[in-house]
Amino acid sequence: MEKIRTIWVGKNKFKALDNLEKDYEDKIGRIIPFKIHLIQKTTKNYTEDKLLKEEGKNILKAVSKDDFLILLDEKGKEFDSFDFSKFLNEKINLSKRISFVVGSFSGVSDEIKQRANFKLSLSRMTFSNYIARIVLLEQIYRAMTLIKGIEYHR
Amino acid sequence: MEKIRTIWVGKNKFKALDNLEKDYEDKIGRIIPFKIHLIQKTTKNYTEDKLLKEEGKNILKAVSKDDFLILLDEKGKEFDSFDFSKFLNEKINLSKRISFVVGSFSGVSDEIKQRANFKLSLSRMTFSNYIARIVLLEQIYRAMTLIKGIEYHR
Repeated sequence: MEKIRTIWVGKNKFKALDNLEKDYEDKIGRIIPFKIHLIQKTTKNYTEDKLLKEEGKNILKAVSKDDFLILLDEKGKEFDSFDFSKFLNEKINLSKRISFVVGSFSGVSDEIKQRANFKLSLSRMTFSNYIARIVLLEQIYRAMTLIKGIEYHR
Repeated sequence: MEKIRTIWVGKNKFKALDNLEKDYEDKIGRIIPFKIHLIQKTTKNYTEDKLLKEEGKNILKAVSKDDFLILLDEKGKEFDSFDFSKFLNEKINLSKRISFVVGSFSGVSDEIKQRANFKLSLSRMTFSNYIARIVLLEQIYRAMTLIKGIEYHR
């Protein structure tokens, strides 16, 4: 079983970033069991509200009760990269598995917000969710190099 | 003459992000005269220190004395996206041209730090400069849609 996962809905809209996500998945995976868990986008013609609910349900299905769920949230806690690595290391040691969840353009359902064990903010700025995904992957990679004391490969 | 520029050294190492940079250049350019100004990487076998000095010189050559120079710096000021758009709008109205400078992996020379009119931080976290470039472009695009009251195209 992987130790860290990111969970998000749909392939990256930018083909360019989709490839880069896979690169980071490999890079992180060489340090710690890691996987990007992709939730299929629903093709149903739902209202935004119903879409969020449906996506939320599918995300929760992918999460087990032991998972430490970290939700990316603009109003969450900000860390610098060093403190983030300390935080992540602590959670690695204390949890069975860590699941980072990045919402869609419209965010996440209330059920996900309630299930979240922790809310993390990457910046005070609002990032497009496609960009947030890459930023998060780079931060996980960076944190793992700090935790393991290995070289950061650009 | 463009009203806003970003200045950085060398093409994006990730071909994927290089294409995305060009996409954002087009998207922003449709709202305000905008250009990514690419400084050629020196191929000389310099020490890191000398490399920074050389890159710094080339960056300064590209900057005119009227430019409002905003340096991306981890220790700079953080904004949320809305306040950043207000800040940017003010500088657009008050300056001939705005030049955002993103350093290389090793940062920027002291000369650039001294020339900077403002230091901006995108996050408390340390971003790879390749990622910072994309994040900055998205924020400039987002700010311009807020300033002009137009739809944000994902």
